[in-house]
Amino acid sequence: MNFRMIFKTLGFLLIVEAACMLPSVFVSLIYRQDDFSAFIITIVILLAFGVALYSIKPRNLNIYSRDGFAIVSIGWIMVSLFGALPFIFSGAIPSFTDAFFECVSGFSTTGASILNEVESLPKGILFWRSSTHWLGGMGVLVLTLAVLPKAGASTYQIMRAESPGPNPDKLVPKIAQSARILYAIYMALTGITIVMLIVSGMPLFDSFIHGMGAAGTGGFSNMNRSIGEYNNLFSEIVITVAQLVFGVNFTLYYYLLKGNVKSIFKDEEFRFYIGTYVVAVLIITINITGPIFGSAWESLRYATFQASTIMSTTGYSTTDFNLWPTLSKAILVLLMFIGSCAGSTAGGLKCIRIIVLSKTIKREIRKVIHPRSVYAVKSGGKSLDESVLTGVSAFFFTYVAIFTIACIIIAFNGKDLITTFTSVVASISNIGPGLGAVGPYGSYADFSTLSKYVLSFLMLFGRLEIFPMLILFTPSFWSRANI
Amino acid sequence: MNFRMIFKTLGFLLIVEAACMLPSVFVSLIYRQDDFSAFIITIVILLAFGVALYSIKPRNLNIYSRDGFAIVSIGWIMVSLFGALPFIFSGAIPSFTDAFFECVSGFSTTGASILNEVESLPKGILFWRSSTHWLGGMGVLVLTLAVLPKAGASTYQIMRAESPGPNPDKLVPKIAQSARILYAIYMALTGITIVMLIVSGMPLFDSFIHGMGAAGTGGFSNMNRSIGEYNNLFSEIVITVAQLVFGVNFTLYYYLLKGNVKSIFKDEEFRFYIGTYVVAVLIITINITGPIFGSAWESLRYATFQASTIMSTTGYSTTDFNLWPTLSKAILVLLMFIGSCAGSTAGGLKCIRIIVLSKTIKREIRKVIHPRSVYAVKSGGKSLDESVLTGVSAFFFTYVAIFTIACIIIAFNGKDLITTFTSVVASISNIGPGLGAVGPYGSYADFSTLSKYVLSFLMLFGRLEIFPMLILFTPSFWSRANI
Repeated sequence: MNFRMIFKTLGFLLIVEAACMLPSVFVSLIYRQDDFSAFIITIVILLAFGVALYSIKPRNLNIYSRDGFAIVSIGWIMVSLFGALPFIFSGAIPSFTDAFFECVSGFSTTGASILNEVESLPKGILFWRSSTHWLGGMGVLVLTLAVLPKAGASTYQIMRAESPGPNPDKLVPKIAQSARILYAIYMALTGITIVMLIVSGMPLFDSFIHGMGAAGTGGFSNMNRSIGEYNNLFSEIVITVAQLVFGVNFTLYYYLLKGNVKSIFKDEEFRFYIGTYVVAVLIITINITGPIFGSAWESLRYATFQASTIMSTTGYSTTDFNLWPTLSKAILVLLMFIGSCAGSTAGGLKCIRIIVLSKTIKREIRKVIHPRSVYAVKSGGKSLDESVLTGVSAFFFTYVAIFTIACIIIAFNGKDLITTFTSVVASISNIGPGLGAVGPYGSYADFSTLSKYVLSFLMLFGRLEIFPMLILFTPSFWSRANI
Repeated sequence: MNFRMIFKTLGFLLIVEAACMLPSVFVSLIYRQDDFSAFIITIVILLAFGVALYSIKPRNLNIYSRDGFAIVSIGWIMVSLFGALPFIFSGAIPSFTDAFFECVSGFSTTGASILNEVESLPKGILFWRSSTHWLGGMGVLVLTLAVLPKAGASTYQIMRAESPGPNPDKLVPKIAQSARILYAIYMALTGITIVMLIVSGMPLFDSFIHGMGAAGTGGFSNMNRSIGEYNNLFSEIVITVAQLVFGVNFTLYYYLLKGNVKSIFKDEEFRFYIGTYVVAVLIITINITGPIFGSAWESLRYATFQASTIMSTTGYSTTDFNLWPTLSKAILVLLMFIGSCAGSTAGGLKCIRIIVLSKTIKREIRKVIHPRSVYAVKSGGKSLDESVLTGVSAFFFTYVAIFTIACIIIAFNGKDLITTFTSVVASISNIGPGLGAVGPYGSYADFSTLSKYVLSFLMLFGRLEIFPMLILFTPSFWSRANI
């Protein structure tokens, strides 16, 4: 492994993180609150470590596949560790475990919180907490690549390891250019969302918080009752649409910008994504009309919002869906697993994987009927390589395996099965709220310290799509023979 | 498709079923109960249909892969339909839906019951109900092959479609011979179990019922409180051991008979199976000592029994594990999914599939670390063919997909999530009891008619390992081009 290059890149990452803290410093200044010093100390620490690491002189500039994975997995843990410091220094979250949990939950765009009460927190802290969503959504390393001086072709390995989806696209041949395009689209869409929220009547600060939360599909709010606090239909519609928009593969927006409108509707994953959403909304609306809400319109209002927030793995809430009938809850749990599109800011298994796996089922059935025939699995008109198919299958089973092991560990807390099960899916799929004690108005405060670390790593597993994190725990990754 | 040969084989199957009803007729005669006539009418019907179909003269004797699947899937539905008749005719279960559910539950060795009260049923009916477990365990078609006159080499397709596991072994080159060896081992082991139960002090009739239930890993009892009724440690030990024994791949017993003792301990799946069982027992014992039972010995007694009955997918009970702590319940649910060994009478995903899938994860991690290397997945010293790997992966995903769809359908009943979820896993893994309302002392009586059919088909999906049933619902299987 090219350790020098790894450390150098990580150093630059910390410098970028320090820069990303500046807006929170300004917020803190504007509102004249005492979280100002917490940020200044953190920024000094970040710059000290960052500059020291970045000054390392590598023998060669090549970043290999394994290096890319190491940069991404270590980078995310590092960024979360340093990002937790303002919470600790300001006294907002005194416990290290809790602060780390909250910060990982932010960067991984999960939005699970150990805080029962957020409204009294300093504004700068709230802003930083939501900034992590925005940064984690498109990826802190993609951002680093966008601004990294002299990013060579080999940085593709970093982008590949951080981007969600089985087969990430490069928009343009140059990685730095691709990263800049992605961030430009991301910033524009986030800006539109924030402006629309302000127009809808949401206060300015809150619009930024929820705009960044929706863009990163995170879910942190500055209100204890989340979006339910405002009871504002216009704001809800803005957030519903925004969440869905940020759950779409950003490559499609690039095509759209280039005038290729057809490609978005031709995209198999996009159609599956929207189709699943519409069906889920319909079933939930019918199911909750009567037992929960008096009119179908009211049901539709809550169903569209809740299905959007869960499927996009954001996790805002306007009502306590814990109280909904079993069918609606079962559908929400299913949406938690599915998630949104590859190449978006959202989590979950991703629609494209569900599509590919469904097609392998079809092929297997055909093989049973015609044992001697050979069938290819196609996507977007092209035959998928067998290695992509085994990769997707392996991903799926690894996801289930990690999910299962985590459930057993979390079960040691002695909470009920529903809480145990949904806390795990809400973490690995980067949603935030689950059902039972971790429902939309619950919190993760009561879990044991071990469980909080397990759930934190689950969030990172989910955000980085398992393998970059998993290899950190693989002895052969670190073995001398490979270095 | 060779329809004539399919119908001819199915005709013979019905004649075999009629023959299998004779012991129940004798039981009915011995106890002089009025279920006698229900059996006689059913046998007449079976023989009428059976002889008519068997007299069809096929143009050629070849059974192709698709024919094998058709025989198995249609055969199992037919056998269940006719097998339900004694329940209806005797008045024991007047509703057709319920009788069909109970019979499928029997043949598929699930043991889920719609009956809240079984102790008042006629003895012949109880005996038939448990006979279905025994017949379904090793397979009604394997039995048919064992006695079918002139079973040719092409009958391998039937055995392949009915036998559990990704890659069924032929013990000896001739199928009929293999089927006879399997049934001989099966009968011997069942005989030993029944004798041991009698020795333990269980009444004669009850010993037959529970011996057949343990052998087929079914779980029907003639007692409402199942094995808990006897509170007899010796009987519990016999059943615990028997359940585990019938969860082992029968090929290993054949090797054992041939003096190859080593092969059983060298077998990867066997070691995984026993290892998982031991770990599960240990965790559960520690977890329930204190909150549920006063002494570790008492906990061990219930943990060994319950883990054995769940992992072997039998489903007897000696206590209400619904009341156990979350960790123990989570482990039991996990065992429900895993199940036992391929080539046994048990259900579930099967240990060998978990092993193969775990190895593909390992390979995928290695591929991430060394992208250019080629790795084979090995089992028992031999490299597994890629088609076996994709087959196992496809099986796993299909299992999860059917599971998910079934959960959504069952959720329409409006029962709680735990009942919904575990009723589906208990059906598809052929266990019987789940948690919540379908716990060890609950029943499936309250589900809607649609749900009962869905659960019945889930049991068949589980027993026949999905694909033989799934292709029945595939239009291209029936398309003219293929006939």
